[in-house]
Amino acid sequence: MPFPPDPPLAWTRVATRTLHRTPFIELEQNDVIRPDGSAGDYTLARFVNRAVGVVPWEKGGVWLVGQSRFALGRYSWEIPEGGVPQDEDMEEAARRELKEETGITADTLTHLFDIHTSNSCTDEWGQTFLATGLTHGETELEATEDIQRLFVTLDEALAAIERGRITDGLTVASLYKVALMRANGELG
Amino acid sequence: MPFPPDPPLAWTRVATRTLHRTPFIELEQNDVIRPDGSAGDYTLARFVNRAVGVVPWEKGGVWLVGQSRFALGRYSWEIPEGGVPQDEDMEEAARRELKEETGITADTLTHLFDIHTSNSCTDEWGQTFLATGLTHGETELEATEDIQRLFVTLDEALAAIERGRITDGLTVASLYKVALMRANGELG
Repeated sequence: MPFPPDPPLAWTRVATRTLHRTPFIELEQNDVIRPDGSAGDYTLARFVNRAVGVVPWEKGGVWLVGQSRFALGRYSWEIPEGGVPQDEDMEEAARRELKEETGITADTLTHLFDIHTSNSCTDEWGQTFLATGLTHGETELEATEDIQRLFVTLDEALAAIERGRITDGLTVASLYKVALMRANGELG
Repeated sequence: MPFPPDPPLAWTRVATRTLHRTPFIELEQNDVIRPDGSAGDYTLARFVNRAVGVVPWEKGGVWLVGQSRFALGRYSWEIPEGGVPQDEDMEEAARRELKEETGITADTLTHLFDIHTSNSCTDEWGQTFLATGLTHGETELEATEDIQRLFVTLDEALAAIERGRITDGLTVASLYKVALMRANGELG
């Protein structure tokens, strides 16, 4: 255990006001005292939901989903992902997103890691899972979802990260962890 | 090349207004046409800077930095990271952050991957690098930075991810990639 105990939080919140609220984020302006004692402003995007991602693994490869990402103004290939309301179990949400976006149900979900996706100006937190023992069925896409499915070998997926074709954070981190598990002989 | 060509972007932006602007993010409300043709609202946090992270690698381990993260309300152990103005080169910025936060200069920086950290409601983009051939000197911390340094073996760092002690997205993704490189015999 090389990590020392956490010191007290070095920031103090003096006042908070909500600038704008949507079903997905709350934009929050804070008056703060910085670690050096000076006064400042710290504006955040607080996420209403948690994020979940799931790596559907079979036959040496993974199922990806492709969709237009408005925030990026571009198309993105990713593991199945979604937002998780505060009252929904994370693993159940992973199973739900997997079924909705790919039609897949899984015998086993294995937790991969917890993650804060972008901790300078958001509080978004999430988890990802490895899904194995896959059974294929019908998708259950929402009307606003415009999603393609694609099976690629893990090596093809890693090569796509290398050339910047896959950039989604949960996807990059999860695929590298799964590749490490494979290298360590921890995958079937 | 298993990936099909990208289809046209399925979202249309009808109108945009800036809700609030800080030196770090611009909160933007958009009137949009969704992929299914319905009208909607899409609010984003646009990041003014790019994100950079760097894994300082020597003797089978990495140098981490610990700091209070206001957005999370908790202490966080991470690879050295920071914001990169649009006119600064990413690799130069990685060297700058490494020097400022750890006092380290590196012979070689190797690009690890490009990443969109949270693409549902932000456009934040970044890159991370592996730093090797390290020389240790004095840190150059800003007055508002309250940072500890810690050397841990890569296995200790991976164990800290496993138990949720390390959760920062750039850090999680970068450490799994570096561990995969080690497993593949690609590290010195």
